[in-house]
Amino acid sequence: MKAEILATGDEIRSGALVDSNSAHISQKLEEIGVSVVRHSCVGDDSDILTAILKEIGSRTDICVVTGGLGPTSDDLTSESAAKAVGVELVINKKALSSVENFFKTRKRLFTSSNKKQALLPRGSECLFNPVGSAPGFSLKIDRCLFFFLPGVPPEMRRMLSDKVLPHIEKLQGKTKTYCQNRTIPTFGLTEAAVNEKLTGFPDLFKEMKLGLRANFPVIQVKLYGTGEDENNLNELLNKASEWISHKIGKRIVSVNGSSMERVVGDLLIGKKATIAVAESCTGGLISHLFTNVPGSSVFFLFSGVTYSNKSKIKVLGVSPSTLKKYGAVHEETAKEMAKGAKRISGATYGLSTTGIAGPDGGTESKPVGTVCIGLATPDTVYTHRFHFSSFNRLMNKKIFAMTALDLLRRELLDLSK
Amino acid sequence: MKAEILATGDEIRSGALVDSNSAHISQKLEEIGVSVVRHSCVGDDSDILTAILKEIGSRTDICVVTGGLGPTSDDLTSESAAKAVGVELVINKKALSSVENFFKTRKRLFTSSNKKQALLPRGSECLFNPVGSAPGFSLKIDRCLFFFLPGVPPEMRRMLSDKVLPHIEKLQGKTKTYCQNRTIPTFGLTEAAVNEKLTGFPDLFKEMKLGLRANFPVIQVKLYGTGEDENNLNELLNKASEWISHKIGKRIVSVNGSSMERVVGDLLIGKKATIAVAESCTGGLISHLFTNVPGSSVFFLFSGVTYSNKSKIKVLGVSPSTLKKYGAVHEETAKEMAKGAKRISGATYGLSTTGIAGPDGGTESKPVGTVCIGLATPDTVYTHRFHFSSFNRLMNKKIFAMTALDLLRRELLDLSK
Repeated sequence: MKAEILATGDEIRSGALVDSNSAHISQKLEEIGVSVVRHSCVGDDSDILTAILKEIGSRTDICVVTGGLGPTSDDLTSESAAKAVGVELVINKKALSSVENFFKTRKRLFTSSNKKQALLPRGSECLFNPVGSAPGFSLKIDRCLFFFLPGVPPEMRRMLSDKVLPHIEKLQGKTKTYCQNRTIPTFGLTEAAVNEKLTGFPDLFKEMKLGLRANFPVIQVKLYGTGEDENNLNELLNKASEWISHKIGKRIVSVNGSSMERVVGDLLIGKKATIAVAESCTGGLISHLFTNVPGSSVFFLFSGVTYSNKSKIKVLGVSPSTLKKYGAVHEETAKEMAKGAKRISGATYGLSTTGIAGPDGGTESKPVGTVCIGLATPDTVYTHRFHFSSFNRLMNKKIFAMTALDLLRRELLDLSK
Repeated sequence: MKAEILATGDEIRSGALVDSNSAHISQKLEEIGVSVVRHSCVGDDSDILTAILKEIGSRTDICVVTGGLGPTSDDLTSESAAKAVGVELVINKKALSSVENFFKTRKRLFTSSNKKQALLPRGSECLFNPVGSAPGFSLKIDRCLFFFLPGVPPEMRRMLSDKVLPHIEKLQGKTKTYCQNRTIPTFGLTEAAVNEKLTGFPDLFKEMKLGLRANFPVIQVKLYGTGEDENNLNELLNKASEWISHKIGKRIVSVNGSSMERVVGDLLIGKKATIAVAESCTGGLISHLFTNVPGSSVFFLFSGVTYSNKSKIKVLGVSPSTLKKYGAVHEETAKEMAKGAKRISGATYGLSTTGIAGPDGGTESKPVGTVCIGLATPDTVYTHRFHFSSFNRLMNKKIFAMTALDLLRRELLDLSK
């Protein structure tokens, strides 16, 4: 079964508002095995709306339309749908009592412009709106069954799950198709390099689609599969994930979509270990990432964001002579920072960053993009120096933080060699 | 001149990703007087892509397409454009040298799949990409001029403003119209409340357009103006900004688009003052925001992300009896944290947060969304308690952090009363 989605309204057409409804509807339709072929958006113009309804009606099975069901003069959806079929607008009894009831229970004044909301194309089926005043409706135009929903996201979402999805599932009968997707984040390879490693995929897994997406600095492998048997589909996805995992190796962050910070957190919890951080150039980003994980207080004890040398000395116990001899951006400083964070918090591991995020502050020997990372383990302290080529401050902070987390991940997985 | 926008890619089609590119392109096109008639989105399928390119080519003047220019096998845009015109793909010299140069300057390996990015339909004009590896191109299909851009938002935005908009303005051939916009961030009012305060705007400033944009937890007022005289336009924008500033009062963060953290940083620099932070529930986010400001090492000295009670005691010097008597989430604890951060770093101000970000961990007296904030000034320590109603961890972290920064901003501006 093929579907399209149509968003209406000048706000979306002109870019004043980003359309998030269509993405939500797509996801929900694909989850029940309907394949979404196209999204469209047009403005509040009755001729244009009528034309696109006819166009979609002629080529697809199902269409979900959002917006234009309100009481004002630029709400033109019902009128245009009626024109597309060639019928008139009539007061729909179910719609009228639903609108009246909405105003009565909320003790709001029912005006004639609200009555307009009960005018639906003859032959349409009213869809009850439990959270707003505008009822929706379904109507066949040409060969396609249209579902018209309000554009207000909570109303649309509720009516989609209450009314539209069950209706479509009923239509599908036995030939229900399941759709699933998996996200496999990788870190440390470029998009092109990941692509090259996965060249053999299409020949081996003909039933599946593979996509790559850059979510800097992570490259996500996206797997899409459809099938009529949910168990088979899951098995196939598992096989494909395994194959990808094998091809990419230790650069795979997770096969279930978990973020780097959650993976590291889970590994720490699994080992009953804890972490403390000392951040200079990452400026709190590592802590922010760790503490985005619900329940992170179990493994995350402390971070010292020590921007000034004074705070490196006073809080973390970095020796003034180390700072004098090597400077703030150096493996030796990173080492003492990591040890300091571990010591004062009593954590199992200490992780530190010191570097130059830019856009200014670089020197010839320590250009913008340089970062030194220290990792204090129960037994020893490792240090690393990296150089990334961006001058963008936020991008550098992100790749520094992710590199530090990845070093900890590999240490916890014993992959560091 | 009429335009359409086409987003490509399975991620957007399937709803895994919300398409924000099309809204941005719409806005920019409408700002220069091009009327956008329709947006569409299709997935990574060469036949479907080819068909929709032909369809759009037959009915409109201009089309901006995003996505599918990467190096991987699901990047099918060039191939489909070539098919739509009926020409072959050829190596475009300008595109090739641009891709090669991208890899050379970044010292990255240039692979054969990257070479694919220089294969453009015969007859197309290469559009240089200054921030990424994928070059864009323009090509006439039927009666419509198409601009093909990468889907990565910063690359798309840069190329749109550098290449596409000037090209279209040239085609329009009329006297140049200047378009300017201003962003005025506000904090502490709902979108509806900001809207109400600005009700009189359309009557007073007929030449301008006003929009509101929620960038949680900040509500941005967006001003758009066009005119043939740049100075007049600027003056008008200044007047309008002043009027808005007057209407909204101390909830205005800046009139030049500066973020909260930059405004606070500038105020600190202006007073030759410095800040140290003690974060519990915001988990490093305040530090991350401060250190996103280039040059923040001048005013930002230290943050202790003290998630555990032990680190609150050991690093910040919070008294164990305070923690025992009041608990971690309390004004008294916030007070000692702010004082501690100020004392150990020698900063002029100390700012602290302790609360419950959720989704779990709330109690009846301290539900999820509760935050206590301490602000140590040179003279005294203020404390505040707030409750926000979200259960979303990241949203709570954001609104807690922004509320703390806003308290400091008001203190520095002497607006606290």
